[in-house]
Amino acid sequence: MIDERIEALRARMAENKVDAYLVPTDDFHGSEYVGEYFKCRQFITGFTGSAGTAVITRDMAGLWTDGRYFIQAAEQLSGSQVQLFKMGEPQVPTVHEYLKQCLGEGACLGYDGRTVSDGEAAELAALMNEKHGVIQGGLDLIGDIWTDRPALPAEPVFALDEKWTGESRSERIARVRGVMKEKGADIFVLTSLDDIAWMLNIRGGDIHCNPVVLSYLVMDQNDVTLFANEKAFPDDVKRALCADGVHLKPYDLIYTYASEIPSGCKVLLCRRKVNSLLTSLIPEGVTILDEENPTTLFKAVKTPTEVENERTAHIRDGVALTKFIYWLKKNVGKIPMTELSAGEKLLSLRQEQEHFMGNSFDAIISYGPHAAINHYSPTPQTDIPIEAKGLLLADTGGQYLEGTTDVTRTIVMGPVSEEQKLYFTAVLRGMLNLAAAKFRYGASGLNLDYLARGPLWELGKDFNHGTGHGVGYFLNVHEGPNSFHWKKTATRRADTVFEEGMITSDEPGYYVEGAYGIRHENLIVCVKDEETEFGQFMRFEHLTMAPFDLDAVVPEQMTARERELLNAYHKEVYEKIAPHLDEEERLWLHEATRAI
Amino acid sequence: MIDERIEALRARMAENKVDAYLVPTDDFHGSEYVGEYFKCRQFITGFTGSAGTAVITRDMAGLWTDGRYFIQAAEQLSGSQVQLFKMGEPQVPTVHEYLKQCLGEGACLGYDGRTVSDGEAAELAALMNEKHGVIQGGLDLIGDIWTDRPALPAEPVFALDEKWTGESRSERIARVRGVMKEKGADIFVLTSLDDIAWMLNIRGGDIHCNPVVLSYLVMDQNDVTLFANEKAFPDDVKRALCADGVHLKPYDLIYTYASEIPSGCKVLLCRRKVNSLLTSLIPEGVTILDEENPTTLFKAVKTPTEVENERTAHIRDGVALTKFIYWLKKNVGKIPMTELSAGEKLLSLRQEQEHFMGNSFDAIISYGPHAAINHYSPTPQTDIPIEAKGLLLADTGGQYLEGTTDVTRTIVMGPVSEEQKLYFTAVLRGMLNLAAAKFRYGASGLNLDYLARGPLWELGKDFNHGTGHGVGYFLNVHEGPNSFHWKKTATRRADTVFEEGMITSDEPGYYVEGAYGIRHENLIVCVKDEETEFGQFMRFEHLTMAPFDLDAVVPEQMTARERELLNAYHKEVYEKIAPHLDEEERLWLHEATRAI
Repeated sequence: MIDERIEALRARMAENKVDAYLVPTDDFHGSEYVGEYFKCRQFITGFTGSAGTAVITRDMAGLWTDGRYFIQAAEQLSGSQVQLFKMGEPQVPTVHEYLKQCLGEGACLGYDGRTVSDGEAAELAALMNEKHGVIQGGLDLIGDIWTDRPALPAEPVFALDEKWTGESRSERIARVRGVMKEKGADIFVLTSLDDIAWMLNIRGGDIHCNPVVLSYLVMDQNDVTLFANEKAFPDDVKRALCADGVHLKPYDLIYTYASEIPSGCKVLLCRRKVNSLLTSLIPEGVTILDEENPTTLFKAVKTPTEVENERTAHIRDGVALTKFIYWLKKNVGKIPMTELSAGEKLLSLRQEQEHFMGNSFDAIISYGPHAAINHYSPTPQTDIPIEAKGLLLADTGGQYLEGTTDVTRTIVMGPVSEEQKLYFTAVLRGMLNLAAAKFRYGASGLNLDYLARGPLWELGKDFNHGTGHGVGYFLNVHEGPNSFHWKKTATRRADTVFEEGMITSDEPGYYVEGAYGIRHENLIVCVKDEETEFGQFMRFEHLTMAPFDLDAVVPEQMTARERELLNAYHKEVYEKIAPHLDEEERLWLHEATRAI
Repeated sequence: MIDERIEALRARMAENKVDAYLVPTDDFHGSEYVGEYFKCRQFITGFTGSAGTAVITRDMAGLWTDGRYFIQAAEQLSGSQVQLFKMGEPQVPTVHEYLKQCLGEGACLGYDGRTVSDGEAAELAALMNEKHGVIQGGLDLIGDIWTDRPALPAEPVFALDEKWTGESRSERIARVRGVMKEKGADIFVLTSLDDIAWMLNIRGGDIHCNPVVLSYLVMDQNDVTLFANEKAFPDDVKRALCADGVHLKPYDLIYTYASEIPSGCKVLLCRRKVNSLLTSLIPEGVTILDEENPTTLFKAVKTPTEVENERTAHIRDGVALTKFIYWLKKNVGKIPMTELSAGEKLLSLRQEQEHFMGNSFDAIISYGPHAAINHYSPTPQTDIPIEAKGLLLADTGGQYLEGTTDVTRTIVMGPVSEEQKLYFTAVLRGMLNLAAAKFRYGASGLNLDYLARGPLWELGKDFNHGTGHGVGYFLNVHEGPNSFHWKKTATRRADTVFEEGMITSDEPGYYVEGAYGIRHENLIVCVKDEETEFGQFMRFEHLTMAPFDLDAVVPEQMTARERELLNAYHKEVYEKIAPHLDEEERLWLHEATRAI
């Protein structure tokens, strides 16, 4: 079937005089997850993983993906003509290197520019320039042959009352207009779905786990135009939007709009986030002010109302998680449980909580060696039983009207080794020390990350992921720009100054391939500490409320201060969670949060 | 006298049709200190401070300087027509703002482009462009009227044997040529005096405390030309240089050379460091590759021989400093001593050490409230007696054939308050924790600085200077690019990766204006720690060997690990320093380095 699709694509390529057709994984908005409509790469290769790029030429069909997916991709590609290119392996060319090798002088590269970022398009243009070739970036050749393509999502949109956000739609629009004035921008083009949802105080369900609305937004000092599927908007939402000067137009018309922006206009947009077809349609006489979307920083700094709501959400979420940990430890070895069934149990506990709106990401319940696999999430194919031994890593989160949660606990299911306890404790020390940092206003994740990694670095160990990311308010669980990391890269700066109200995850870990994995994650909110002659000092407060498993903690490895930090946190957990438990659970939590 | 000079200058300005003449503090090489020849700003204003800029127009003469010098400048300017512009004060225009206000359409700004950096010249050019004015950057109008101007320094040059540096001149030249090839540079222009001294393994005495040789250097793949005063070079040095392909030409001829670089050439130079006259003379058809001087990173990474020598230098220096501390504590209140006389005592103790070549900077011996003054260095006008109470801050350093030292000890002269002990201990904890960091290769000062500031930040306190700077090998005491700081600025990146062999100061402090100042400073060298599956780990080793005054240490404030760090350091100090002391001093040191 895949081969038939590839031949159909090649026929369309021939008609369009395209020598190579590129199929990325992205939707039109650079979203982290993509809906069924956008799964062109899966359609043309059969590979279902979350990352990868397909390239189809007249005589080759290839899929590029990374180490997480080598085994899965090999299985899913077998039986088709699609070759697997293992990214990062020696001798394996990158997509760009491959295109450079295989395309001849004057060749034509095609792709759907709505799925290619502006930066990527610029690199491809440079590559094709060398060959005196051309790019056709306005093609959707997969769409042409995908006869039973799912419809674009159009889940019902709902408005988020000011009591949840603490700031009205008109106030948010006004703040953005203020930045536009400051920068001298006539028009602001916004295509990031969570930024749009934030500014308009609307939520939807168009992306898995992300309560966003598929749309593009354009605004000036008078009007806001939302390009979206009108059918998804109930009348009361339409009326409310209209009252704030927000008008709907069909989703696809953004491209017509872009091509008709009057010459001389100054357009504020973030090239890293807007797709390349959109920017390529903007007429030449228009000046593009390429800057971070002002909404990104606004959204990251939660309002006092949002922070207060998050505290409520985290108590509810902590009640569900505490019940889950108790259930696991009580029942393991006695009743059957697997990674997937445990995930279902946790979901059912969350569903009992008020205002729970769904998972904030696919639950990572990974037992034993599975916990050492980066981005593992159990499927029916990988699911394994949980036994009364070793460590279970549960990285899960929920969406509530009161906010988004993201929490990891590593739970002792039975006997664990001294080595496991050593690293369990080291990771916990790092988590606690980072959360307890007091720092001068102006510090960033680059300055503070050592606090989380220090205990592992002391042991010659580390974890190969960031220490923390920003989290949305009843929005995307991964949000910029705040983060913790020690290394800057082109795409990850980690030098955002922590502002009062920013919510960030604090999640160091330690992983031994084929054996076990440990991660401890709390969400922490940045608050003001004292102001002295040296200026404003800042600190964090824990939002997440759930016990860390003392069964693997070695108190002797901790400093007196670290023990105090753990004990104080556990005391707070007990005080906030116990009132919502039954007597049996409460007695257990009392013991589980005892001072050490 | 100053007013006469200003009138003479104005006459020269009129002859040259110059409306405003700018006189910065710099020499022709962007050096930290400038020699007598270069003190034009002092000549025309009477102000002797180390920082400031003069602007003379037809009807105004002004001096801009910063808060350190407001009092001194006001005194020194009184009686002349020179107005003081207090930089950073409200309503006080910057030099550029003033020029913008006072200069009319089509005006002419003049300066000696050898004393103005390329970046500054670009800003001035933009300012003058707005006014459709012109810049004359090739004038030395102060030189024209300064009849008894001191000669350019020409201290005798000497060659540094390979036994001191571990790397021959030809090897260093070859390394730089390697970078030139890599970057496709035909010519490399180097004007930073310490970089030239490093590459050629020569030292001189042309700048106060900096053993450098006034010169410019130009090289290609075959020749190295050193533009310098030939008379300063003994015959054997000339022969040795010649043997390595290094030829001398007169100092001033660099400008002729620059103007004759053939079109089509690619010239590697660092615009931040080369003066604007030099770059302005390079013909248009020449391509400038503006990059950090390759010598800068090479110089920062000391050879194993240099590191070994530095250990020797620091023992000698530690012996002198330990004797000094003992002398101070034994004699205070019994014999007269002042900041200046104490500095002389310390210098005499250093002079007893083998291969001592002089101070590496003007000793900062600051007693009581003086220790809270940034950049304080005692003069006969400010000198005060040291009494048997409070804290004495001694930030001093020496030049040895075996390297450069820079060390600060805060010494308890008698009764001190609980508050002083609190901060003395907090600063010491930070110093010890930073020096004890173990970290993955790739970390920078931005990542590690929190370790030094943490104990103060916990108390809502801080210090308003960097935590550490690179130090030369028998060269400048302030050297880039390695440093410790938590904040990036345009001129201070603090993101240089620590390499094995880099020597950096670790010097947190705490200052209370009008009361006291505390700083603890050791030089630390970066070394390799273990290599694990996570890569190479790095750590630091103390080079500086001298006791910290336990009389102000509060052990209860320190963690067990911090006490261990201090005790281990003191044990090493005793082992290395005691053999070089007399019996009385040895007994004292034994007690002064006791475990707490």
